[in-house]
Amino acid sequence: MAELRKDPVGGRWVIINVDTPKIPSDFAKEEHIPRSGPCPFCYGNEFMTPPEIDAVRHEETHPNTPGWLVRTVANKFPALQIEGDLERRGIGIYDMSNGIGAHEVVIETPYHNKDITDLTDEEVAMSINMYCRRSIDLQKDSRFRYILIFKNRGAIAGASLEHSHTQLIALPMIPKNVLEELSGASTYFEYRERCIFCDIIRQELQEKERILIENKYFVSFCPFVSRFPFEVHIIPKEHASHFCEMNERQRLELAKILRETLLRLKIALDDHSYNFIVHTAPCDKEDHEYYHWHIEIMPRLTGIAGFEWGTGFYAVVTPPEVAIKYLREAKV
Amino acid sequence: MAELRKDPVGGRWVIINVDTPKIPSDFAKEEHIPRSGPCPFCYGNEFMTPPEIDAVRHEETHPNTPGWLVRTVANKFPALQIEGDLERRGIGIYDMSNGIGAHEVVIETPYHNKDITDLTDEEVAMSINMYCRRSIDLQKDSRFRYILIFKNRGAIAGASLEHSHTQLIALPMIPKNVLEELSGASTYFEYRERCIFCDIIRQELQEKERILIENKYFVSFCPFVSRFPFEVHIIPKEHASHFCEMNERQRLELAKILRETLLRLKIALDDHSYNFIVHTAPCDKEDHEYYHWHIEIMPRLTGIAGFEWGTGFYAVVTPPEVAIKYLREAKV
Repeated sequence: MAELRKDPVGGRWVIINVDTPKIPSDFAKEEHIPRSGPCPFCYGNEFMTPPEIDAVRHEETHPNTPGWLVRTVANKFPALQIEGDLERRGIGIYDMSNGIGAHEVVIETPYHNKDITDLTDEEVAMSINMYCRRSIDLQKDSRFRYILIFKNRGAIAGASLEHSHTQLIALPMIPKNVLEELSGASTYFEYRERCIFCDIIRQELQEKERILIENKYFVSFCPFVSRFPFEVHIIPKEHASHFCEMNERQRLELAKILRETLLRLKIALDDHSYNFIVHTAPCDKEDHEYYHWHIEIMPRLTGIAGFEWGTGFYAVVTPPEVAIKYLREAKV
Repeated sequence: MAELRKDPVGGRWVIINVDTPKIPSDFAKEEHIPRSGPCPFCYGNEFMTPPEIDAVRHEETHPNTPGWLVRTVANKFPALQIEGDLERRGIGIYDMSNGIGAHEVVIETPYHNKDITDLTDEEVAMSINMYCRRSIDLQKDSRFRYILIFKNRGAIAGASLEHSHTQLIALPMIPKNVLEELSGASTYFEYRERCIFCDIIRQELQEKERILIENKYFVSFCPFVSRFPFEVHIIPKEHASHFCEMNERQRLELAKILRETLLRLKIALDDHSYNFIVHTAPCDKEDHEYYHWHIEIMPRLTGIAGFEWGTGFYAVVTPPEVAIKYLREAKV
């Protein structure tokens, strides 16, 4: 089982793979996705993955066989393990815990060469429904305090398989970046008695300079403080703290805006690798009136160098006001 | 001039290049360092860089001509500009400032193919002296609140030139990551009345499990909470908050341990790209009894995927206890 260790200075947690450690010869010089061999996420290869946890299936088809539209399986190489009790302990100055958690994969289409942007809005909504269904199920486990939903698309973004998929990780603690966002938003709320994200949306919709797409429930825009070139956020216009609280109509609208945003990025950036991350409130039942869920999409056009690591500053080579022009002009 | 913008939620600053923005066609599919054409950092090509700011030179040689051993120039493509007054302003909810700062490059050898590990300890000490001299000089400028010293070695680590060099950036604000480290260390000090880094050194020296090299003044080790495989920290054994306060003897000992640590990494990891970052206290004249300067060396063996961006968690595939074995066994 992996070990969770906590940095005594900054409070950051890391997951250390102590069971199957990589040694120097395991690191390839270049990152790439192997293109040969059968894909475990393809139709007919269901036996190649760990057993199915959930799926949207045609009637009268059976788990771990073809006939599915969206399929969730455990990650074959999980960062954390689902079995066991959480045991925290200290070694002198250091805090650690065993690596309890869940690590699942949502396979978004049976077809190897279909990207999210090639699916229909209804098909994308099916995946979004699945993210929510799995999150809600994992939240029932009292060991977990945060459910992270994220996508790595392309080798540079950390994907190890080409076939379209999104990952869920359930964590036994609220991660540092989430705590920071919660804390910043809460401070603002105490001061102004308003949600900071609602204020950002209001200002962006008023200025119009960085808005990409707006529909009934959502808006996508290049944030004023982008950390990466062509970064795009998608956020619900009405205040909502938990991703999973969307109704069916909202999920379809999210599917539409997500698909079109990713399609515009794909066209403008020649199908470049990206990550998207769902930022949502923790699993607790609290209202979080100061927090507003959203999705951050980060194309991986530039690397992270010493400056970024050393400071947490980011040097951004494309202003959001320039990026938005290319995204608007992309012929979808 | 660039713009500095502050994230209203998390407080993070970014530098936005608004003057010469990159457009989609500027981003190459793969990162690489172009190997053709003359190198501006080589002996005889001094005219290719911005004017010399400082250098260690043979007597009777002139600035911007050959005859130097270590040479500092302004970065030709600076992230921030030295001229002007710092002007902060707000746009609705957003805070920003003009991009005032300094961005310098220390060229560590006149020879293109010499890495730090190919230099003598005395030559490495000359570069360390130069980092300190430039830091002390930049600290005199009251606009600057933090001087960052860092190295990008290899394309994956963000280097745009092969020739061995280290960068200095003077910033008009203390960056978020530094503030977090200061805050964590200060909290510990208030509670225990001891420096947390001194406690870490004590525990690591006692356990011996992750120690790589120890000399009179310094120790290098794989930290218990590594964020990256084969991460190594170098820290002075005696408490000291500011990097530039080292005496000559200490600088030579730092040169020795830095050179040998980098050499062991180079051998064990087949000359892989890395960053190193000097973590030191801010420019103010305060004592910072709770802070302890150190150098963090991060080989760039693995990429950053959605999980790391989303959480600030790091999934580490090589435990420090395994990495240390390979570094100790490297035949130097």
